[in-house]
Amino acid sequence: MNTAESPTQVKAENPDTAAPRAVDWENPRVAAILSAAAKCFARKGFSATTLAEIGKELGLRKSIVHYYFASKAALIHEVQSFTYHKHLDRLRQAIVGAGEASAAAAPNALAALWEAIQTDKTGTGLNIEVWSAARRDTELKRRASALQRDARKLVAEGLPEILGVSATDEAKLKGLSTLILAVVNGLAVAEYLEGEEVDVNAAFQLFLGQLRSSARQG
Amino acid sequence: MNTAESPTQVKAENPDTAAPRAVDWENPRVAAILSAAAKCFARKGFSATTLAEIGKELGLRKSIVHYYFASKAALIHEVQSFTYHKHLDRLRQAIVGAGEASAAAAPNALAALWEAIQTDKTGTGLNIEVWSAARRDTELKRRASALQRDARKLVAEGLPEILGVSATDEAKLKGLSTLILAVVNGLAVAEYLEGEEVDVNAAFQLFLGQLRSSARQG
Repeated sequence: MNTAESPTQVKAENPDTAAPRAVDWENPRVAAILSAAAKCFARKGFSATTLAEIGKELGLRKSIVHYYFASKAALIHEVQSFTYHKHLDRLRQAIVGAGEASAAAAPNALAALWEAIQTDKTGTGLNIEVWSAARRDTELKRRASALQRDARKLVAEGLPEILGVSATDEAKLKGLSTLILAVVNGLAVAEYLEGEEVDVNAAFQLFLGQLRSSARQG
Repeated sequence: MNTAESPTQVKAENPDTAAPRAVDWENPRVAAILSAAAKCFARKGFSATTLAEIGKELGLRKSIVHYYFASKAALIHEVQSFTYHKHLDRLRQAIVGAGEASAAAAPNALAALWEAIQTDKTGTGLNIEVWSAARRDTELKRRASALQRDARKLVAEGLPEILGVSATDEAKLKGLSTLILAVVNGLAVAEYLEGEEVDVNAAFQLFLGQLRSSARQG
């Protein structure tokens, strides 16, 4: 393969200038690299993972990973956007599903929401890595914050349908969506740290019960 | 990768053997080093912080920090225990305060609980760093998980008094304490990522309202 960049030629790139680099998520090889990178980053953290290891997961040479991603910083930013957008898509589908369900199926819609936003192990590991790296990487922090805002907005828009209430109180919808995302992130961390020792599903069911009964009371 | 310590001066120590080393938290110099280290770790992360920088915060030579803490790994473990125990103490005080307050003051007791467990910026930064490092440091993970369990137990024990309900349903108290800690951790992360853009206090107040009304309904 006639790659423009061999590992020794990779420029030390500013993450801020690297970020807008166009990457085609529809390209199967790009998607495979992004998925493999997400797994490696979640398992070992950003700094302990090399581009060579990510390539190895797929049986690709490091130079091929470099061909698509000029630097590890660029790859980290792209992995974050990629996995977060997949996560937002699942969330969107659960909300559409909730809207199509009958009013009687609202509890199922809430369960689907939990399924959709309950971050898988790779997602949690990656999120924690992003939160930690965000202090040193302002572009990563800006992206993490923007994606968090998108998720909150999506939840706020879907809530009236999910909870079967009218969307009258903007402030309350905003507060509830902040709370829901906090519960999901917090429970994901609890499961990450304690595994089987903590019953995050029971805690989420309690939360859903509270949400539903507070929605009924208006 | 990325450890900023000068490799020639730092012994390669096994974190597991370094952990049980006795450190006297009552010693003012030890307490000062632990507080300064917590601040540095929260600001820059574990790997980018050197023992020399921590000493510099206090006008101490690196060798003095080394006198008390044989390795950065040992210092990280001790900082985590130290800050978490301070945090548990504040939590304990808020719960005792809630028990002494009249039933009418229960909402204030809940507010005090939020004040007590709402992690300060250093606490959040340090927590995120611990979560991230836990994947590479099993002793740190074991400690983080044990301390999380202690906090949950403390909240579960205090809840009947805080919410003014009888402690009949063990499983519900356990679920509620898991939920409360998840909300606190999740909202702390939201504030860390988004700052002023997200109203974590409003979200917590909503949560308290739900908690209280579900307690009234038994």
